[in-house]
Amino acid sequence: MTPSEFLATVLGRPVEVKLDTGVVYKGVLASLDGFMNLVLEQTEEFVNGKKTRAYGDAFLRGNNVTYISLQKGAAA
Amino acid sequence: MTPSEFLATVLGRPVEVKLDTGVVYKGVLASLDGFMNLVLEQTEEFVNGKKTRAYGDAFLRGNNVTYISLQKGAAA
Amino acid sequence: MTPSEFLATVLGRPVEVKLDTGVVYKGVLASLDGFMNLVLEQTEEFVNGKKTRAYGDAFLRGNNVTYISLQKGAAA
Amino acid sequence: MTPSEFLATVLGRPVEVKLDTGVVYKGVLASLDGFMNLVLEQTEEFVNGKKTRAYGDAFLRGNNVTYISLQKGAAA
Amino acid sequence: MTPSEFLATVLGRPVEVKLDTGVVYKGVLASLDGFMNLVLEQTEEFVNGKKTRAYGDAFLRGNNVTYISLQKGAAA
Amino acid sequence: MTPSEFLATVLGRPVEVKLDTGVVYKGVLASLDGFMNLVLEQTEEFVNGKKTRAYGDAFLRGNNVTYISLQKGAAA
Amino acid sequence: MTPSEFLATVLGRPVEVKLDTGVVYKGVLASLDGFMNLVLEQTEEFVNGKKTRAYGDAFLRGNNVTYISLQKGAAA
Repeated sequence: MTPSEFLATVLGRPVEVKLDTGVVYKGVLASLDGFMNLVLEQTEEFVNGKKTRAYGDAFLRGNNVTYISLQKGAAA
Repeated sequence: MTPSEFLATVLGRPVEVKLDTGVVYKGVLASLDGFMNLVLEQTEEFVNGKKTRAYGDAFLRGNNVTYISLQKGAAA
Repeated sequence: MTPSEFLATVLGRPVEVKLDTGVVYKGVLASLDGFMNLVLEQTEEFVNGKKTRAYGDAFLRGNNVTYISLQKGAAA
Repeated sequence: MTPSEFLATVLGRPVEVKLDTGVVYKGVLASLDGFMNLVLEQTEEFVNGKKTRAYGDAFLRGNNVTYISLQKGAAA
Repeated sequence: MTPSEFLATVLGRPVEVKLDTGVVYKGVLASLDGFMNLVLEQTEEFVNGKKTRAYGDAFLRGNNVTYISLQKGAAA
Repeated sequence: MTPSEFLATVLGRPVEVKLDTGVVYKGVLASLDGFMNLVLEQTEEFVNGKKTRAYGDAFLRGNNVTYISLQKGAAA
Repeated sequence: MTPSEFLATVLGRPVEVKLDTGVVYKGVLASLDGFMNLVLEQTEEFVNGKKTRAYGDAFLRGNNVTYISLQKGAAA
C-alpha cells in the first residue's frame, strides 16, 4: 500500500495528526489535497498530551505534518 | 469538502488563525490568495492565550499558517 | 480586497511589520516587490516592545514577514 | 548499493526512522514514495529513548527524515 | 523607490546588515548579486551589540539577510 | 579538486558526517546520490561526542548534511 | 568586485567560513561549486571560539554558509 493509498484508506475516519511542532490534532479526516493540506471535523488540539482546544472544522496546512495515523481504538 | 472549498466557506466570517510560532490571530477573514496570504479585519493577536494586540486590517503571510478554523461560537 | 490590494492601500503610509523572529519594524512603507521585500522610511525596530534602533531607510527581506498592518492610530 | 537500492532492500522489514526533531519511529516499512513519505506498520514512537506511542499503520512525511536503518537485531 | 533601487543607492556606502540569527555586520557594501549575496569591505561583526570580529572583505550569503540599512550617521 | 571530486575520493572509505543538528555519524561511505543522500556501513551515531547508537547500514538524508570528512587516522 | 569574483580571489587561500549554526571552519579553500559547497584543506572547527576538531580535507555543504572571509593575518 503506497503512502497515497494509505491516506485514501483513512479518509472519513478518526485520525491523529502530529505537526513538526509536536502539537497533535485529532478529528475525522474530511479531505486532503496534493499539498497535504487537511480538513478535520470535530477537531481537538493536544499540547504535551493535554487537550488545549476543541472546535468544529479546521484547515491544517500540509507542510507542517509529521505523521498521520488512525486514532487508537479506531476500527482498523 | 476539499481544503479549498472549506476555506471558501469561512471567507467573510470570524476565524482563528494559528501560525507556526504558536501565535494566534483572530479576525474576519476578508480575503485569501493562492499562497495562503490572508487579510483579516478587526484583527486581534494572542500570545499564549493573552491578547497582545488589537488593530484593524492586517496582512498575514501564508507560509507561516498552521491552521485556520471558525472562531468558537461562530455560527457553523 | 485581496491581499495584494490591501498591500497597495498601505503603500506610503505608517505600517507595522512583524518578522518571524518576533521583531517588529515600524516606518512608512515606501515600496514593496513581488518577493515581499520592503523599503521602510523613518524605520524603528522594536524587540519585545522596546525600541532598539531608529534609522532612516531600511530594506527588509520579504521571506521573514509574518504580518503587515497599519500602525495603530494611523487614519484607516 | 545506491541510496535508493538500499531503501529497496529494507522494504517489508523492521526499520528505525529518526526525524529531524530527534523523535524515532520503529515499525515495518510497508511503502515509500519519491518524496520519501513512508508508511510504517505496527508503529512505535520513541522520544529520548522512551516509548511514547504505539499504534498500527502510520504515514510519516518524508521531508523530516534524518536516517532510516534496519532495526537492531533484524536479520541483515 | 523600489527595493532594488534602494539597494543600488547604498552600494559603495557604509551599511548595517542584520541576519536572521540577529548577528549584525557593518562595512562598506562593495557588491550584491541577484541572490542577495553581499560583499562587505572593512567588515565588523556585532553579537548583541558587542563587536566580536573585525576583518577585511567578507562574503555574506544572501538567504540569511533580515535587513540592510545605511549605518547611523552615514550621509543620507 | 571540486566538491564532487572530493566526495568521489572518499567513497568506500571511513568518513565522519556531521548533520545540521550537530549529531555526527561515522561509517564507511557506501554510496551517495545527487541529493547528497548517503548510505553508510557499520554506522555509529555520536551525540556531543558520546556514542549513542551502533548499527549496520544506514540511509542518511542529504539535506541535513553539514560536512563530510575522512575519519581521523584514516589513510589520506 | 561581485560576490562571485570575491570568492574567486580567495580560492587557494586560508579562509574562515561561518555556518548558520555559528560554528566556524578554518582551512585553505580548495574548491567551491555553484551550490556554494566547499572543500577545505587542513580544516579546523571552532565552536564558541574553541577549537573542537582538526582534520584534513572536509566537504562543507553550501546551504549552511553565513559568511566566507580571508583568515585574519592572511595576506590581503
